[in-house]
Amino acid sequence: MAHYSPSVENLINKLAGLPGIGRKSAHRLAFHILSLDKEEAKAISDAIIEAHSKTIRCSCCQNFTDSDPCPICSDPKRDRSTVCVVESPRDVATIERTHEYRGLYHVLHGVYNPIDVRAMERVTLKQLFARLSSESSVNEIIVATNQNIEGNATALYISRLLKDTGIKVTRLASGLPMGSDIEYADDLTLSNALKGRVEIG
Amino acid sequence: MAHYSPSVENLINKLAGLPGIGRKSAHRLAFHILSLDKEEAKAISDAIIEAHSKTIRCSCCQNFTDSDPCPICSDPKRDRSTVCVVESPRDVATIERTHEYRGLYHVLHGVYNPIDVRAMERVTLKQLFARLSSESSVNEIIVATNQNIEGNATALYISRLLKDTGIKVTRLASGLPMGSDIEYADDLTLSNALKGRVEIG
Repeated sequence: MAHYSPSVENLINKLAGLPGIGRKSAHRLAFHILSLDKEEAKAISDAIIEAHSKTIRCSCCQNFTDSDPCPICSDPKRDRSTVCVVESPRDVATIERTHEYRGLYHVLHGVYNPIDVRAMERVTLKQLFARLSSESSVNEIIVATNQNIEGNATALYISRLLKDTGIKVTRLASGLPMGSDIEYADDLTLSNALKGRVEIG
Repeated sequence: MAHYSPSVENLINKLAGLPGIGRKSAHRLAFHILSLDKEEAKAISDAIIEAHSKTIRCSCCQNFTDSDPCPICSDPKRDRSTVCVVESPRDVATIERTHEYRGLYHVLHGVYNPIDVRAMERVTLKQLFARLSSESSVNEIIVATNQNIEGNATALYISRLLKDTGIKVTRLASGLPMGSDIEYADDLTLSNALKGRVEIG
């Protein structure tokens, strides 16, 4: 026996299809939405449509934006000699929050993973190389992909393809996070921290 | 500096307003939605509107439904002498899954909590008492509110108001959950399990 009406069941299914939302969370969200005023529910629905329809990809860095080129790519104060390659648009916001980086970005929307052909079609590595061959100002690529097998493979792939172009390819440092205890560090992190040790002063 | 366009920021804010969704989850959900096809995003948006517009409250049990009275209230096979009082529509589905209960329900959409006046306005205690005075067939109310202070207060409130009506008011048993170790049980659960002990065989 179905315990909910078809439209509620459909809403639960749609919500459960979102990343990180299980069946139980989907139930809770659906019933929260049902308990809202009509205007509030419509506001959520409209926000999805509006964000989706207004958001395009920056033709330069492939980040989500509502203007092309995006505010970062069109900012004359940004350092155009450095491009930071990230996996997702969220990573751009995370790096921007540090206020440490003043260069440009390139959003891959995925990682280099030749096994997953469908995902690879969406990865904007082609656009990165096309951009680098047309923009001569770039002299460093910082690969800021995640510290895992796919992230490292992507970094390696980019560095190999750009080997003879004179563009320096760097990778974010891997090591102990701030506030961490050496006692609790995993072997891989500790060995990376050892390999990447820096001179003091 | 805003890292996202206004429409994306608005979507993130709307998602972060949902229960159990923090800022980080809201970011992840928003970017997942942006990466969907137009049809998929529209399907989510439509599901919200459709579920919200098609869902009404059953005039009898106050549960969310698309037909009035709801399938449970209009089912001739259900035992009309028992009404199980629950806090939320989700609880109805949870109890239905046990296949142990064949009576009717009443959904409070909250709990008895005289301090929170706004929430109390939404609680359907009034409708419960109106229903009980018009339906003479009911002889037992099972209060299945959560096992906490508000849930217990609600149970007590209902039992006091129905004291002289001849309707029996019961409460779900409180005790050790199945599969639990006595060693790890909290004091309150254990003392409830002791008080509610049942004879074997």
